[in-house]
Amino acid sequence: MSPEERLAELGIVLPVMPPLGGPRLKRVVVQAGFAFVSGDGDESVQGYVGSDVSIEQAAAAARTTAHRHCTVLREALGSLDRVGRWVKTLVLVRSAPGFADQPTVANGYSDAIAELWGEELGLGARSAIGVAELPGGMAVEVEAIVALV
Amino acid sequence: MSPEERLAELGIVLPVMPPLGGPRLKRVVVQAGFAFVSGDGDESVQGYVGSDVSIEQAAAAARTTAHRHCTVLREALGSLDRVGRWVKTLVLVRSAPGFADQPTVANGYSDAIAELWGEELGLGARSAIGVAELPGGMAVEVEAIVALV
Amino acid sequence: MSPEERLAELGIVLPVMPPLGGPRLKRVVVQAGFAFVSGDGDESVQGYVGSDVSIEQAAAAARTTAHRHCTVLREALGSLDRVGRWVKTLVLVRSAPGFADQPTVANGYSDAIAELWGEELGLGARSAIGVAELPGGMAVEVEAIVALV
Repeated sequence: MSPEERLAELGIVLPVMPPLGGPRLKRVVVQAGFAFVSGDGDESVQGYVGSDVSIEQAAAAARTTAHRHCTVLREALGSLDRVGRWVKTLVLVRSAPGFADQPTVANGYSDAIAELWGEELGLGARSAIGVAELPGGMAVEVEAIVALV
Repeated sequence: MSPEERLAELGIVLPVMPPLGGPRLKRVVVQAGFAFVSGDGDESVQGYVGSDVSIEQAAAAARTTAHRHCTVLREALGSLDRVGRWVKTLVLVRSAPGFADQPTVANGYSDAIAELWGEELGLGARSAIGVAELPGGMAVEVEAIVALV
Repeated sequence: MSPEERLAELGIVLPVMPPLGGPRLKRVVVQAGFAFVSGDGDESVQGYVGSDVSIEQAAAAARTTAHRHCTVLREALGSLDRVGRWVKTLVLVRSAPGFADQPTVANGYSDAIAELWGEELGLGARSAIGVAELPGGMAVEVEAIVALV
């Protein structure tokens, strides 16, 4: 089953992305068989993970971010079926002092992608790190590189 | 107009880069049609953005970093005209607690590149994040991936 | 001398990597002539560099991480001799307030790779940054992109 078919089967409705405001960037750049996806996050989930924000809330924000990335990839490519595999993600978790479970937060993103592309093609190389601050005060930001078919 | 022509027209003189001191790295690696540019920054702008350093000062440091990246790309490639498009940048802002406007800082870099390559080719995928500390205490560091023509 | 021959000559025994536990990722993804290596670190070295952890200890953890990356690359590729050059590394140092010598920590990784591939092919583009927190409380995490031959 293709990612678009799987999306329909699961009844997932991708979020509508607002127009880009101030940031001077492209949400997706296609080059040499790769698509590079800008860092993005769910701005409705704000604060430091481990104090203001629970692991569960942060993982849910990561999941939403995965679906936001799907929206911008579909807009750039016409269909998610043009994404052959997830190559690399960088997951940034705005972390309270001592918070050390960034991987579980990042799994929220990875699981959402694996639901659509499967384990073999949907799970890529990944780094999860704890950062001090993120744009707009959000709790989780993710950037990605995918390979096209 | 090419990036080199635009640079001349705008009267921008690229900074001279000092020899690499201690860091064990290459400033630019060319591979498979991409050039990967090491993280770099303006070491004269030091401190935490949002307390010691204003947004305007940090955006100016990001702009200087864009020009430093141009210097090292020209050294590696012979001419900036060999850079076809900006693919991806990662902008690291050393952030005071609660500082949330990393994108405006990053725009200092993006605007400097868009002046030379234009909006279509000069703006790429981007992530802006707030980090705790940066080498030498500097306020802003940027790394980039560009595509060659 | 090839990287595998050099490894043998130096008498370096690569660490055995435990099975992946909870993180939903692949340790190595091969795509379009590149191998993308997930963020990883030496979990036995924990704390903030510059307070709990000395620069020397952190550089040693970075060196161990280089060898861990070699282990997973050999598992993915069959032999380290398939890695033609080191393209890019991102070195994340969990930094105490005011710690500014992330590059020396990162050199622990770069030196270990340069021992095996030589300066020309082993040193790549690099960014070193100070982050607030890392998975499991570890002091250093590194991710890498290499080019295959």
